[in-house]
Amino acid sequence: MQAVLTTSSLKLIAFDADDTLWVNEPMYVNVQQQFRTLLMHHVSEETVAARFYEAQMRNLRLFGYGAKGFMLSMIETAIELTEGAITGSEIQQIINIGKELLAFPIDVLDGVQDVLETLSGQYDLMVLTKGDLLDQESKIARSGLGHYFKYVEIVSEKNEPAYQRIMQRYGLQPNEFLMIGNSLRSDVLPVVHVGANAIHVPYSVTWAHEQVEKEQLEGKSFLAFERIADVLPVLSRY
Amino acid sequence: MQAVLTTSSLKLIAFDADDTLWVNEPMYVNVQQQFRTLLMHHVSEETVAARFYEAQMRNLRLFGYGAKGFMLSMIETAIELTEGAITGSEIQQIINIGKELLAFPIDVLDGVQDVLETLSGQYDLMVLTKGDLLDQESKIARSGLGHYFKYVEIVSEKNEPAYQRIMQRYGLQPNEFLMIGNSLRSDVLPVVHVGANAIHVPYSVTWAHEQVEKEQLEGKSFLAFERIADVLPVLSRY
Repeated sequence: MQAVLTTSSLKLIAFDADDTLWVNEPMYVNVQQQFRTLLMHHVSEETVAARFYEAQMRNLRLFGYGAKGFMLSMIETAIELTEGAITGSEIQQIINIGKELLAFPIDVLDGVQDVLETLSGQYDLMVLTKGDLLDQESKIARSGLGHYFKYVEIVSEKNEPAYQRIMQRYGLQPNEFLMIGNSLRSDVLPVVHVGANAIHVPYSVTWAHEQVEKEQLEGKSFLAFERIADVLPVLSRY
Repeated sequence: MQAVLTTSSLKLIAFDADDTLWVNEPMYVNVQQQFRTLLMHHVSEETVAARFYEAQMRNLRLFGYGAKGFMLSMIETAIELTEGAITGSEIQQIINIGKELLAFPIDVLDGVQDVLETLSGQYDLMVLTKGDLLDQESKIARSGLGHYFKYVEIVSEKNEPAYQRIMQRYGLQPNEFLMIGNSLRSDVLPVVHVGANAIHVPYSVTWAHEQVEKEQLEGKSFLAFERIADVLPVLSRY
């Protein structure tokens, strides 16, 4: 792989949180599975999955990302698919399942602790994530990783203007900023498009909305590693 | 009133958003009224109001402030009070009522435009608000006031650590920071407690959760004005 990253100019390394620092999407997949099971006697699991994704996309503009919008979209889908016949008690079950998303114990991914321990002595580190404000703050607190990060930025969308705003706020040139994350759509492409550095560390499960077409990656310069620990030989200054 | 504000050292003025820059609480009161009416054939309006407030307080730790948590708490309350008998269609009505909170046209309060127009030429201005991230960003955009503000900070709670973090992030001493807002609990007391400046501009309707006891205000130094336009003679430098 061609070298596309000059570490000597780097000042700040931002880490995505969900599925980069800790397990997240599997919790959402699990909640969706419980949701489909709950509606099984009304409608097929495939139909639930498809209609739920439609509801999420339709509501994204209003609700944004995160667990609360996820819960409201599950409720809407359940009402739609049962033509209003679902009972209050079943909806309470959906809410209870959804609340798990706001309180599950955080499972820090392998290698993360080492990477943060090493790099926090050499760079300013930031958590840069999207979703519900309090929910993401709570996950950082529950992870026990908060002390490694000088900054926390929670944004409603990780697109080019968002990255430009962040770099401006911290007085950073693009070559001074590096983003590390599991989502090509949110953590890599917009970062590369604004001229900054990105490292992709994929995760085994990716939400459909975060997936990108292969063509969008053509000619883009970024590093990709299988495990987060692999960033250390590239980034560590000692 | 004794002068408690030295404007010569001020660098940044932060404005609360809801019920300081624009009408907000009346929208929530209206949605609650529609919610109570919807449940009228099940249970008295007083009971709905009391149980809904309980649900909001119980869920605050998980959901935080904002419209989505408000919607989820309405749904829970409706299920509770009907012992699960509420139908999916009625819950969809609750969701539809709640969605109004995420899209209502913003009614900028009298005098706000003038105040921002004048002060934005003389100080750095910030919107500093709590609630759902995307929802608050959307309200700022819908208000048409965004261009007056150099910074936007949306936080999960406006308490002393939050104000300290903000001042640290922007390199401000307490005497360089002024907060203007309608909530004694969120915009005034914690600001005064960290040694910074606060101006209280009350609004006609205050959510019960934001109210404070008179004793908490004793010996606290802050300015209070009836209308936001009243800040101009005090703050304007020309």
